[in-house]
Formats: sequence, C-alpha cells, structure tokens
Amino acid sequence: MLIVMEHSATQQQIETVIRAVKRLGFAPQPIPGQNRVAIGVLGNQAYVDEEPFRDLPGIQELIHVTKPYKLVSRDFHPSDSVVTVGGARVGWGLEPVIIAGPCTVESREQVRVTAQAVKTAGAGILRGGAFKPRTGPHSFQGLGYEGLDYLAEAGREVGLPIITEVMRIDQLERVAAVADCLQIGARNMQNFDLLKEVGRAGKPVMLKRGMSATLEEFLAAAEYIVLEGNANVILCERGIRTFERALRNTLDLGVVPYLRQVTHLPVIVDPSHALGRRDLVIPMAKAAIVVGASGVMVEVHPNPAEALCDGPQSLDPAGFAQLMRELRATLAAGIPSA
Amino acid sequence: MLIVMEHSATQQQIETVIRAVKRLGFAPQPIPGQNRVAIGVLGNQAYVDEEPFRDLPGIQELIHVTKPYKLVSRDFHPSDSVVTVGGARVGWGLEPVIIAGPCTVESREQVRVTAQAVKTAGAGILRGGAFKPRTGPHSFQGLGYEGLDYLAEAGREVGLPIITEVMRIDQLERVAAVADCLQIGARNMQNFDLLKEVGRAGKPVMLKRGMSATLEEFLAAAEYIVLEGNANVILCERGIRTFERALRNTLDLGVVPYLRQVTHLPVIVDPSHALGRRDLVIPMAKAAIVVGASGVMVEVHPNPAEALCDGPQSLDPAGFAQLMRELRATLAAGIPSA
Amino acid sequence: MLIVMEHSATQQQIETVIRAVKRLGFAPQPIPGQNRVAIGVLGNQAYVDEEPFRDLPGIQELIHVTKPYKLVSRDFHPSDSVVTVGGARVGWGLEPVIIAGPCTVESREQVRVTAQAVKTAGAGILRGGAFKPRTGPHSFQGLGYEGLDYLAEAGREVGLPIITEVMRIDQLERVAAVADCLQIGARNMQNFDLLKEVGRAGKPVMLKRGMSATLEEFLAAAEYIVLEGNANVILCERGIRTFERALRNTLDLGVVPYLRQVTHLPVIVDPSHALGRRDLVIPMAKAAIVVGASGVMVEVHPNPAEALCDGPQSLDPAGFAQLMRELRATLAAGIPSA
Amino acid sequence: MLIVMEHSATQQQIETVIRAVKRLGFAPQPIPGQNRVAIGVLGNQAYVDEEPFRDLPGIQELIHVTKPYKLVSRDFHPSDSVVTVGGARVGWGLEPVIIAGPCTVESREQVRVTAQAVKTAGAGILRGGAFKPRTGPHSFQGLGYEGLDYLAEAGREVGLPIITEVMRIDQLERVAAVADCLQIGARNMQNFDLLKEVGRAGKPVMLKRGMSATLEEFLAAAEYIVLEGNANVILCERGIRTFERALRNTLDLGVVPYLRQVTHLPVIVDPSHALGRRDLVIPMAKAAIVVGASGVMVEVHPNPAEALCDGPQSLDPAGFAQLMRELRATLAAGIPSA
Repeated sequence: MLIVMEHSATQQQIETVIRAVKRLGFAPQPIPGQNRVAIGVLGNQAYVDEEPFRDLPGIQELIHVTKPYKLVSRDFHPSDSVVTVGGARVGWGLEPVIIAGPCTVESREQVRVTAQAVKTAGAGILRGGAFKPRTGPHSFQGLGYEGLDYLAEAGREVGLPIITEVMRIDQLERVAAVADCLQIGARNMQNFDLLKEVGRAGKPVMLKRGMSATLEEFLAAAEYIVLEGNANVILCERGIRTFERALRNTLDLGVVPYLRQVTHLPVIVDPSHALGRRDLVIPMAKAAIVVGASGVMVEVHPNPAEALCDGPQSLDPAGFAQLMRELRATLAAGIPSA
Repeated sequence: MLIVMEHSATQQQIETVIRAVKRLGFAPQPIPGQNRVAIGVLGNQAYVDEEPFRDLPGIQELIHVTKPYKLVSRDFHPSDSVVTVGGARVGWGLEPVIIAGPCTVESREQVRVTAQAVKTAGAGILRGGAFKPRTGPHSFQGLGYEGLDYLAEAGREVGLPIITEVMRIDQLERVAAVADCLQIGARNMQNFDLLKEVGRAGKPVMLKRGMSATLEEFLAAAEYIVLEGNANVILCERGIRTFERALRNTLDLGVVPYLRQVTHLPVIVDPSHALGRRDLVIPMAKAAIVVGASGVMVEVHPNPAEALCDGPQSLDPAGFAQLMRELRATLAAGIPSA
Repeated sequence: MLIVMEHSATQQQIETVIRAVKRLGFAPQPIPGQNRVAIGVLGNQAYVDEEPFRDLPGIQELIHVTKPYKLVSRDFHPSDSVVTVGGARVGWGLEPVIIAGPCTVESREQVRVTAQAVKTAGAGILRGGAFKPRTGPHSFQGLGYEGLDYLAEAGREVGLPIITEVMRIDQLERVAAVADCLQIGARNMQNFDLLKEVGRAGKPVMLKRGMSATLEEFLAAAEYIVLEGNANVILCERGIRTFERALRNTLDLGVVPYLRQVTHLPVIVDPSHALGRRDLVIPMAKAAIVVGASGVMVEVHPNPAEALCDGPQSLDPAGFAQLMRELRATLAAGIPSA
Repeated sequence: MLIVMEHSATQQQIETVIRAVKRLGFAPQPIPGQNRVAIGVLGNQAYVDEEPFRDLPGIQELIHVTKPYKLVSRDFHPSDSVVTVGGARVGWGLEPVIIAGPCTVESREQVRVTAQAVKTAGAGILRGGAFKPRTGPHSFQGLGYEGLDYLAEAGREVGLPIITEVMRIDQLERVAAVADCLQIGARNMQNFDLLKEVGRAGKPVMLKRGMSATLEEFLAAAEYIVLEGNANVILCERGIRTFERALRNTLDLGVVPYLRQVTHLPVIVDPSHALGRRDLVIPMAKAAIVVGASGVMVEVHPNPAEALCDGPQSLDPAGFAQLMRELRATLAAGIPSA
C-alpha cells in the first residue's frame, strides 16, 4: 500500500503514520516528493487493511498495490487450473465446454427431452434450475427438490454431469449430493456465508459475477471459496448493469482475455442471461469462444414459447444444434487466441 | 401492458398476440397507428408477466404500464404508513428519527459507551452490527450472537430500541427475539427467501437499497416482505454504484422526494456507508432531512481511529452531538418540504 | 406515445389531455384500465415531443412508442446501406473493412512507414489523427494541418483511402478536401452543430458512440447527419463508461447484432480505444468480426514504445500482420452469423 | 507516479524502467516488496504522462499520485476563490447566488416577464438559453442571436447580470460582448478547443460537469480554462448518468462538500436539469444550499405548460418565489456547514 500524505501534512503527522505502519508489523518506506510525502508499506504478505490508516490526520489517499485476493491470482499459481465436472474438463486453452439446459426445470418430461437434445448436439454439461430467484414475488419460483430429482435423473439417463444453483445454505447438502457442480448466482456473489459453506462442500463451484461487481470483488469472492480448500472454481461472466438498457445487461467480453492474465481459474460466459434475446445468443456465444472463454452456458427449452421462465432467451433444440455447428466451425478454424 | 408490433408484423401475427392476451384472461385493445399496431392489455389486476408474449413472432417491444409492486404503492394505500420501532415512530412528515451506533459491535464496553453517548445527544434508535458481510475473507466479521447480546443489553440500559442486520435465515429467530427492527443489508436486497422469512417474523424491517438496484426493484423487494403480511417496512437509501469512484458510492438524495410520491412506506438515508468519509456525513445528513427523509442512520464510535470496521466514516460522540445540534436547527427552521 | 394517467386522475384531467392531443393534430385513443386510464396518441409520423403533455395535471407517465429517429431505422429503409470510402465498401454482410494506422500522425516518416505496413498486411483504409482531444491540457495535441498533409500523402503513396477526425466546424473544409471519410469522435457525438455541418460536407462520415450514450441517442445523432442529405454514415462502437475500471472502457459487443436489426447503417468496432491494452486488441477484434461487425479499426504504430499517444494500445506492424492472419482465418471459416 | 512491476519482472526490466524515469528528468525510487518491486517517480512538478512507461515490458500497473490538474487545486491555492459576475459574488462560504430564468429565450416578452419576476423574488443572476443543444434534430433549437439580445435587454431592464451558454467558438465574440458569464454545457465539458477560447475571452465562466465525467476529468477541464489565464471559473454539478432511469439523472450532491476540500473554485448546483421534474426542484435546491453549494441555478418560465423546452422542470413565478422563501429560511437557520 502507498499512503499519500496531504500537501500540508506536518512532520508529526508523517511520523504518526510511520509508527502505525510499524505497529502492524510492516516496514514503512518514506518517499519524499516535490509536493507531498508518500509512505510505502512494505513487508505485507497479503492485502493491507486500510482502516488502521484511513483515519489518521494528514492522509490524503491510500493506494492499494496488493489486491484483496491471493490464492486465485496467477502470481501465486502461474499455471492454469483445470476444473473437472463429471467427465468434462474446464480450463484455459482446453476445448471449451458447452453447458446447456432449461433455465428452470418445469417437469420430468421437459428436462428429459432437453437433456436428450443437448447431449445429441454435443453439450458437455446439463444445466437446470430447481430454485429460481425472481424479482417479483408472484413469478414462478421453481419446482424445488422435485426439480432437482428430475434434473439428476435426466443427467444420468443421457450421461451428462449436471450443474444447478444453490441459493441457501440449508439446500446445500441435498443439492451437493446429486449435482456435479454447484452454481452460485449473481445475486449471491457476495453472500459470504454461502460462499464459505460451498467452499467446504467438496464439489466444483461455478461462481457468477454480480450484476455490478468489479473484477476485484469478483476475484475476492472466489477467494472466499478457495480459502476453504476448494480450488475447483469456475468463474462466469453474465453481463453487468450499465446505463444502457436496450439490452438486459452489457455482456463484458473484454474481461475474458483480461482475467486470463490475472487468474488461473477458468472463465466461462453466459450470453443468454446477459442479453435476454435468443437472436443474440449465437453470435455472442461464438465471440466468447473466440476471445478464449473456457466454455459457454446457454439456455435450451423444448418449446421456448411456453417456457415458464426466460423463454425469450432460450434456444430450441434446433437452435442449439445450429449453435453447436457454428461453434465447431469456429474451433476448427483454430480461432481462439493463445 | 402495451404490446408494440413490428412495422412489418402480419395480420396473422397480430391475431396470435390477441389470442394470447385473451387466453390469460385479459382484454386486448388494438391501437392501429401510422407505422405499426400496438395492442393494449386491459383488465389485469397486477403486473403482467411478459414471458407469454415476448416470444411471439412480430412483437417489437413490451411496455409495462403496471408496476411490479402493488401493496407498497401509494395508488393502493394513499395515506402515509407509520412504522413503530420501540417508542420511535417513523413516517413521512413525522419528526425524523436518528439511528446511531457503531458499524460493528466490538465489545460490551464499546457499545455501552456509544449507546450512552447517542442517547444523551438525542438518538431515537440504537444500531450495531453483530454479523458483518466483508468483501475480503480476512477482514473482521463481527462478534456474532455475543455482539447481539451486548447490543441488546446496551439498548435496555439506555432505553433505546435496537436495530441490527440479519444476514441468514437461520439467524432470524434469535435476532428477532431481541431486536426491535431487523435490517436487511444492501447485498441481501434480492435475497428473496430471506425477505419472505423476515416478512413473517413479526418485527419491523429496514430494507436497504441494493448497490445497483433500480427503484422499481427496490419497491418490488419491499413488496416481498409486505406480501407476507408485514407492512412495517422502512426503506433506506444508502448510495448506489456509479462510474464515479472518488467517493465510495453516490448518495442518491433525489429519490427521497420521488419515493414520497410513489410509496407510503417511509424512507431514511444512511450517509455514512454511502460516502465513506466522516467529514461528509454531517452535511449530507442535514440534506437528507431537508429533502424530507423520515430519518437518518449514522455510524458512531467512541474512538473511530481504533474501530475494527468503517472507522473513517464514523463520528465520535462529540461529532454526533454536533450533528444533532445542526439537525435540530434544521428542523427548527421548518425546512423539510411538505 | 402512450399517456398513462394517475390512478386518481379526474375526468376533467383526462379530457384536458385529450384536447391537447387533438390540438397537435394527433388522434387520442383512450384505453380504460382497471386502475387507471391510458391515452394512446395516434397519427404521428415522427417522434412525439413530450413537452406539451408532461406538464398537464393528472399524468403519471409518458411512454414513447415511436423512436427519436426515423431515417436511420430499418423500418423506413429495410435493406442494408453500403458506404463507399475510396475503394472500400462498408456494409452489413460485406467483407469487413480493416481500418488501421497511428492514433496520431507524429511525422511524415511515421505515417508513411505505418501506411506501407498496414497496406501490405491488408488494411482497407488508413487512419491517423491530426487533431487530438486530450483530457489534460499539457498532453501532445497533434500536428494539425501538417499532420493532415502527411496522412494524405501517405494514403496516396500506398493507395489507401484515409479517415481522420474533424473536431471543429472551422476545420471541416480543409479536412473534407483531402479525407475520404470524416470521423466524429465520441466526445463530439452530440455536438449537433458539427453533426449538421458534417452532414453537408459531401463525404462519408464515421460517427463514434459517446462514452455514455444510449443506443437511442447514438442513432438520433446519426439522424442529424442523415437529415442533411448524407446517408453515408458508419457507426462505431468504441466502449462505454461503466463502474468497472480495470479496463479503460467496457466494449459493448452485444450492440453489434442488436443494431443490425435496428438500423441499415453499418457498424464497426474500435477495440483499441475501448480496452487500452494491445494484448486484448486481437481477441476482441476477432470477436467483433464474429458478431457481424462491418469492420474494425485498430491503432498501429511502427514503434509503440515511443508513440506520443496511446502507445500501449497500439499494435506494431508485426502484431498487425498477425491480427490480419487471424481475421482471415476467422473469415475463411465463414463464421460471421447472418 | 508509482510504477508497480509484475511479480515475474526481471532485473533487466526493472532497470529499463529506471532508465526511462531518469530520461524524463525524474528521480526513480525503487521500493522492493515481498512479492514485487515498485518504483516511485519523484521530482515531477505536474501530472506524469504515463505513456512513456505503460508500454515497457514487466510493468503491471501505473498508479498516479499527482492529479491531472494543479491550478484549480487547493494544494496550490488554499484560499477560496471568489468569482464576480456583475454585482454577484460567488464563492465558498459566501451567501449563495440564485441563478434563475428560462431554459430557452422564446420571445422578448417571455424573458422580460421572467426577469422581472425572478429579480423581484431575489435572484442574483438571470439565465436564458439562446442556442440549445437538443438530442433530436427536430426539436426547437433556440432563437440564436435574437434570443441573446432579448436576454441582454431584459437583464439591463431589471438590473441583473446575465449568463448564457456558448456552444461554438464562432459564437464566442458576440456572446462575450453582452453576457456577464459564459456557460459551457455538459456536452461541451471536454470540447477542449472551446475551453481554451473561453479561457481567453476575459469573462467569468460557468462549467457544467459532463454527464459521465469523473471529478478528476471535471477539474482537468476547468484547468484548461484557468491555464489560459482566466481563474474566474464556477463549477456546476447538474446530475450524472447512472443505471437508474426513474429520474432523468442522478444529482450527485455529495460532490459539493468533497469538492470544497479539493478545489478553491466555487461549486453551484442545477437541480432542474438533473431531475427533470418541478416538484423535486425545491427540496433539492435547499439540499444543495445545506451541503454548502455557492449557488443554485433553476429554470423559471412564466407559463411552464407552454414552454418550448423543459417545461416540466420549470418553476412558474409563484413557485420560484416559494423557493426563495424556503431558501431564505434555510439560510437564516445558519444551516450550511462550514
């Protein structure tokens, strides 16, 4: 951390800061400048908490050099992590995994038909929501454990590992018993209790970026999980909230190559939720692959016009088969950048 | 809802939409225009779910007229609600309530001293966090139930009702047993399971606006609580995330007079969290009162320089007494707008 | 437009609104609802100005159905426009044009060497800034007309059309005399006087999206140019400002397939400015092509480490040749979605 | 500036950076850390341009300590500036100036009537637009120089100084000949050529914050004007663009007390444009005064329902008189914080 003193800071204020740095066991390094003094904080192994300093008189600004995460950083783990979900391997530079299935499990038949269709077309993981967070209290909220059972059954039937969202700690045990990967939704990205529990559940985790989470916060949230001993974390970019409202969210694809430099954890992209429109899913899914994403997650429904949730952004089986053909052509052209 | 058809929509597409409207029990009202047809959806008592429509061919846009909330709206409850927290009455046009106390309960002594100071200076409710959500996993996370006990004891001692945050459903019973008002934090504004449970707990609730929540989402979240039969909800503006990062958040004071027109629920303002700097708390707290807020919530610590959490934004007892003097002068001048 | 009356609006207020609609020559269409009345405004040929209405008592909300642009919309011009810049043809579905060159013209030699390199590698248009807007007043502001001459000379020498930014109306005549395409920068997207003058200059125009411009504002700005009789407008997505600051801007690629549905004008993408980092330019440029962009614009400098402007985001000639190879592979795979 | 090297930076890379710092005449100060080396750049008198560094290999991040402005900073000019506009004195801690008048001059009569009303009620400066930037090309764009003459005449008649917007350099001479203060609109905040010319015009300037401008950019824009020798600059907060669209913009009042610490230039607030609704103007204007603003600017129209521009946010003369009464009560209570 760099502590920038005010132009008008007194020598006594500077010395108080220096003592505070020493008291925390760090080494202060004064850097006299033309207009002000700055004090480098050296010797820290981890993120320096700014609160012991921010309140001292004469300080203008605290500038962090160390990030609020460590285990998820490339600095401490230079080689790519590979997360194994059932038979699927997810990692930077590996063949991208395609995760597909309904937004919400609506019936045994619906998820079975979808599972068969996405398996045939080449998906690697089956997705489906049993519990659904909904903005308004009157919307369909999912089938709950019954939906979970249907999803698990459909996955077994077609031989695909399954991923599903855990919303509450008290759901964790039952969900972890059948799911191959636990999804943490965007609204729960900073539900720290849930993150910790999921970190102890012994299953791979897919963590979605919060709607207004910075990349630093996103990585710090992943750190919560990894700190519990679970390094099998997949990050998922799913769109951020900006001033632009013509589309549901702004899919931030530039973070994919950026995160590749910063973290060893794989990053996948969910274009369905971000854009909210089926016709944009195929081009954006291909773009995700082209920028190096380790996978894409898309919503597929046997009959989107009758879906209870997110129909307008769901592909039908024919649309998904078309997506898979285009993704294969993209991959065959060797397009993802190294 | 208004369904706007595409310029090129066929007569058959228009008829399909009309049939879909009828199937849901609503009355379709076609509105032929110069360039396109629109179809009004009449007869709905509540928010119309857009999903049965969005996927039909030939539709350009769905425009909601009804909002995704009803019980919290002035339309259905024109008179102001008054929420009673212990002896404090919170409502539009009433004397503003001042909620004060430490960000986090750190010790029996710390909260007792603070409680005494804020009571003496004129606070109406004592606040204090027992469980703290923290962005990074290594920060101090609160004393838990021990902290809750200290807070309750301090409140009893000085005769102030207390408010504290509930983060998880499994904490609810014990917290509701001692707290006079349950706080839902910004990160949990859309934790719908928690909202529902809190709605059934029989205690007043203070709901903080999510960092990137629209007012429509904020009110829809409050609707979740009210729907469970609990109309004692206080809304809290605490700053939103914008591109500007010089201050921690952007305190959105304009929403106070706006919400006064839209909802009967009272709105209070938390300037401490929004701005993250003590020196801005007093002016912004006064501004909150001036725009008509039903209360303000501020952080007070006996010795901010040693606070384990959010010290830089905490007032010390002398600063809080100064705030109270300035707020009283503001109120004496009869300044809040009708 | 749809005029939504308040729940409590009186019959007299409703009639006043109806008269106001008639006075403007439009046809009012009352739509009685369960909780409120809405009044459709029919018969308008263009965007309805909301100001005669917004101030009438009893109105809750004005909802626009018609957009604030018309000539640039697909509704009124369903087929793709093709903009010809020198020998390059730019349009939806055509082979993407690659625009390359230095951020700023620094010397005759620098632009000549760059022009030769980008021509050899396959660029279709040469870019270079003569006048540079800079956030701080002390930064290098460009060579002015001398730079323009060097750019024109370099373009002629290698046989490439040139594009350069016009910042002020008084520069327009001299710039239009030598440039094949006039660039309007993001900061000037709503400099309406400049837009009108550029619309009359008889040259193709490339209009960059403002840093915080909605798509509706972007298209309305293009409408200013087209209204002057100049339909040769290319739109350029260059990143928007969001809360995320790890990268300079958030490149909003989802707007490319969205705009393809909304407008007949071609859309190109500038990944260099949006991301501010060379290593992200190649993947994002390929992604732009994959989502259907009609071109990409990238910065190339013979020696980025010595560039006076935006060196860190500039490719060197070898990097640009690599980009071209990868883009050709992308195109050969037939990847852009229809 | 602090140059943070990558974890894996080589000794040679570090030395290259050190040489680059020396070459620019600055003093490099290596700060060895646990995980990486940082290099302080000392001896700079002004903002350090990052471009000579950003492109060197092995650099992870460049962190600015010096701001991109100097003359407008409190560091270099600790005492408050007072800007004199006609007889009105504008500065931190002085009695706030009230600037009032129509959004747009529509006729000699309209501006004369308004001028009389706002003068009577106690305004200190008369405002009115002669040239209006409008998002859509078909809206009323102002009366031009004719409007300017009417405004000047009305100001003389009632004895109020006038302020009006300059949109183009070629308007500057004629506008500066009659206006007492030149307004630069939000869309032109980074129109650097215009800023420079306005800086040379010898008249006070009111600079509006751009819709998505950071405070750093805002102050750097003011620096452009002051650098030309004109220190008579008033800053104006007028709302920023955020994800929240229920109100037109988010009025960012927290910046007022913050800017008071950072700059000696006075800051005023324009609640009319930010909120777009008359009923919110009075409370927010009072809040602006309470947080210490040096003035407020509001729109007044003799008959808002017939205004050609921004009627819904304009006060009528009675509403303005009410605002003035409330502001006087606010001031009499001695409320603005020191």
